[in-house]
Amino acid sequence: MAAERRVYLDNTATTAVLPEVVDTVLPYLREVYGNPQSWHLWGDGAREAVETAREQVGKLINANPEEIIFTASGTEANNLAIKGLAQAQASKGRHIVISAIEHFSVLHATRTLEKAGYEVTLVPVDKYALVDPDEVARNIRKDTILVSVMHANGEVGTIQPIADIARKVKEAGVLFHTDAVASTGNIPVDVEALGVDALSLAGSQFYGPKGSAALWVRKGLRLIPLMDGGVQEGGRRPGTEDVPGIVGLGKAAELAARDMASRAGQFTKLRDKLIDGLLDKVSHAILTGHQVQRLPHHASFCIEFIEGEAMLMLLSSQGIAVSSGSACTSRALKASHVLIAMGLPHEIAQGSLVFGLGLDTSQGDIDYVLEKLPPIVDRLRQMSPLYAKFVKEGRG
Amino acid sequence: MAAERRVYLDNTATTAVLPEVVDTVLPYLREVYGNPQSWHLWGDGAREAVETAREQVGKLINANPEEIIFTASGTEANNLAIKGLAQAQASKGRHIVISAIEHFSVLHATRTLEKAGYEVTLVPVDKYALVDPDEVARNIRKDTILVSVMHANGEVGTIQPIADIARKVKEAGVLFHTDAVASTGNIPVDVEALGVDALSLAGSQFYGPKGSAALWVRKGLRLIPLMDGGVQEGGRRPGTEDVPGIVGLGKAAELAARDMASRAGQFTKLRDKLIDGLLDKVSHAILTGHQVQRLPHHASFCIEFIEGEAMLMLLSSQGIAVSSGSACTSRALKASHVLIAMGLPHEIAQGSLVFGLGLDTSQGDIDYVLEKLPPIVDRLRQMSPLYAKFVKEGRG
Repeated sequence: MAAERRVYLDNTATTAVLPEVVDTVLPYLREVYGNPQSWHLWGDGAREAVETAREQVGKLINANPEEIIFTASGTEANNLAIKGLAQAQASKGRHIVISAIEHFSVLHATRTLEKAGYEVTLVPVDKYALVDPDEVARNIRKDTILVSVMHANGEVGTIQPIADIARKVKEAGVLFHTDAVASTGNIPVDVEALGVDALSLAGSQFYGPKGSAALWVRKGLRLIPLMDGGVQEGGRRPGTEDVPGIVGLGKAAELAARDMASRAGQFTKLRDKLIDGLLDKVSHAILTGHQVQRLPHHASFCIEFIEGEAMLMLLSSQGIAVSSGSACTSRALKASHVLIAMGLPHEIAQGSLVFGLGLDTSQGDIDYVLEKLPPIVDRLRQMSPLYAKFVKEGRG
Repeated sequence: MAAERRVYLDNTATTAVLPEVVDTVLPYLREVYGNPQSWHLWGDGAREAVETAREQVGKLINANPEEIIFTASGTEANNLAIKGLAQAQASKGRHIVISAIEHFSVLHATRTLEKAGYEVTLVPVDKYALVDPDEVARNIRKDTILVSVMHANGEVGTIQPIADIARKVKEAGVLFHTDAVASTGNIPVDVEALGVDALSLAGSQFYGPKGSAALWVRKGLRLIPLMDGGVQEGGRRPGTEDVPGIVGLGKAAELAARDMASRAGQFTKLRDKLIDGLLDKVSHAILTGHQVQRLPHHASFCIEFIEGEAMLMLLSSQGIAVSSGSACTSRALKASHVLIAMGLPHEIAQGSLVFGLGLDTSQGDIDYVLEKLPPIVDRLRQMSPLYAKFVKEGRG
């Protein structure tokens, strides 16, 4: 392939790992290889590194480090939160409230609980993917034991009013979890300011290694582990600690906390150029998600009359990486449940295009996308029966 | 600390990562950072690397690569096997048979299933920690749906007659899982020759990275996932793939397959010197586990009248790393359930000492241990009420 440029704009699927993070990880692959549970120098070095990372992650989200449970993915953190908290509360009730646009790791975890006798209510979202805090409150029942609403959505970038939702949920005396995988490291996340009881995050969303994630759970809350085994993570997440991954997560958290404001400023400027340029140059394109309440590095659209996957492939042949919905599901070729929940018709939802800007994204990259995308859209529309029908009916 | 030498003999807790493995992992931390689920060049590179690793792991255990499920730990692989297979078979029955010396990730997983209405039978072991295949067969009932016996025990090194056990279990029409975390990469593991239906392994036991492990499950077998979410690993283990960890596991598997015989020869020679030397120089020391049917890099003992933890600390101050039982539990300060199941009295079991030789272990390391350990044992015995009583009673 001989694209003029290589432009990675799929940072919502996964980010690169920052060189400083790689440098921090390396000694834990090379020299400090002990098991943190071991009673000797090698174990001590590994254990201290894990505890340093716990403090770094705690600092990023303003949480007590002791309350952080390291996991191998955001998906694992979400499963542990949903299943672990629900099962620990089962004697009080079996009703769970989530939003309709949760990540599959939350949505499908609740479906598994449904098979075990739990009831799940999905709260709708508006056309911007926003959840109404009052709507959440209205769906809380006497037997509601858990509410989970994501902080930000990876597909459409919308940031929820989590503090408002949490206040109403806590007033009703119910536990509140937020999936902050897409937001943590990219916008301020403060567990006290948000007022939540549990929060999931993942390093691969903010320049940490894949396989590094965490669940924060407020002290004193019972949690049934997904796995049984050793004493690691207070017995809540047994298995030998992935020391290099954990160290990398810690370093990425430290850097994200330090650079968050400057990163956001850099992202927002370029993102707005991308949004304005794309809406200007591509007809029948819709910005999905909220215009203002959105992740700073995130721009998402539906391009009418064509399919997202076809765009991805032609963009890829031009050296441009983007996605069409969530990476966890985009290969499954279904219209996104998020876009459907926002009220978009199925045929429009299929034209989803998600851009995630990164720390290395330049003005030149944005210009390149704005140059390459319109002819790709034109070419695909020329092959599109939907577009032919639209033109024929004279609405074009 | 100014020890004369640093001697890491805790390779049963975790191994170092081989430099060749680190070199193979590095590009996947630095350049090839795509999400394997993404539809573009970055995703393609990551996906191809994951599939290469799947083939390398398949080759090591003579399994179809498609049947390998990557996990983040041996503990996760064991939980997925035990809970996933048992739950998928629940309509046929709810009885499970395991050995009394399983790792806590198997033992405690079955305890969790007991709370959900399953019944669990523990098959005893003899004084060498060997499981009798006939004893397993005798415990199989009409409602038995799963048998799990570990391939090798990490605390005492004993290798079980898995092929014989599997034959009897399969004759009874029951699924058979083996926890091969301690054995895979260290001795030949061939899923067809063993005749098992599912097998767990972990990279941190054979010079791969921590956080890299796998469960192999024979094609066509149903498995209820521990987690819900995306489509990764055929939906059986959702969550963004830990590409660097998986790549490292693959490379470690390739090297283990290539070098297994020479490594075993090197280990056995030094291990036998350690065993002979220790039994010669330390009185009232017992070799635990089987003399011949044991892991080539493994030597374990009970040193009477003293506690393992005290020995670990004094050895550590001499620069020597060993363990006292399983790393997953050794900080919990309990006598090992493995040693108790082998019939050792509680007070003797507390004097457990486990040596795991590594690729860098030298004759000089063994000599150093044989020089430093005896005076440590003497010193601790001088402080031991048990030893004082023993001497006073004239049995010394």
